[in-house]
Amino acid sequence: MNLTHIEHIGIAVKNLEDSIKYYEGVLGLKCYSIEEVTDQKVKTAFFKIGQTKIELLESTSPEGPIGKFIEKKGEGIHHIAFNVKGIQSALDEAKEKGIKLIDEKPRTGAEGLSIAFLHPKSTNGVLTELCEDTSSK
Amino acid sequence: MNLTHIEHIGIAVKNLEDSIKYYEGVLGLKCYSIEEVTDQKVKTAFFKIGQTKIELLESTSPEGPIGKFIEKKGEGIHHIAFNVKGIQSALDEAKEKGIKLIDEKPRTGAEGLSIAFLHPKSTNGVLTELCEDTSSK
Repeated sequence: MNLTHIEHIGIAVKNLEDSIKYYEGVLGLKCYSIEEVTDQKVKTAFFKIGQTKIELLESTSPEGPIGKFIEKKGEGIHHIAFNVKGIQSALDEAKEKGIKLIDEKPRTGAEGLSIAFLHPKSTNGVLTELCEDTSSK
Repeated sequence: MNLTHIEHIGIAVKNLEDSIKYYEGVLGLKCYSIEEVTDQKVKTAFFKIGQTKIELLESTSPEGPIGKFIEKKGEGIHHIAFNVKGIQSALDEAKEKGIKLIDEKPRTGAEGLSIAFLHPKSTNGVLTELCEDTSSK
């Protein structure tokens, strides 16, 4: 598959407001957007650093994926997202190579990107997302 | 502090060889270096994607930090490293703002970079590294 850069890193946090204070006040990054993704039961805050975004994720429900992650593992890095050219063919290729897919077809994620997840069982424990901006096609 | 980009993402793996196969064979990245960092008790493999490196970390001892991490949490993303301009002043600033430091002074890490870690207790659970290439100064 044709990966170009790390699109974002998803970080599970308990409290979005407190975490924004750290990323802005200590690391000197600037939060440029806060967005709720209802089907993922999360509220997200975005920062840009070089080519990559940092996406802080606060769960809006203990039943959501981030709520469950924090309950099990605590706060921390949740997933890594690669920008890919040709997301559907990348998914088909991964499947053909024996990778377990969470999403066989891309769906719409935060910021309107086409996204799909590979299962951490097939990726050495790293929840891995593929992203493509298909809005201009 | 003045962060410019994500220098690398450190990923703890059980078996470097198996993981290299996934990153090369499925994701299509190219391992350009394998290096042992004896004081950290790890063997590392590096891949480049855009501005960022992926650093796979296999423990060479169950007593090393990566061995302990895998025992506690399993394989997965271990730390995130930001490239910073002026690593010592960044550390001083973080400390002044109440951040717990693992390294008060930079030390030499993989690839000869000056590196220092912030403690995950102060960074919402994310083991955070600052890096600077000071070799040309």
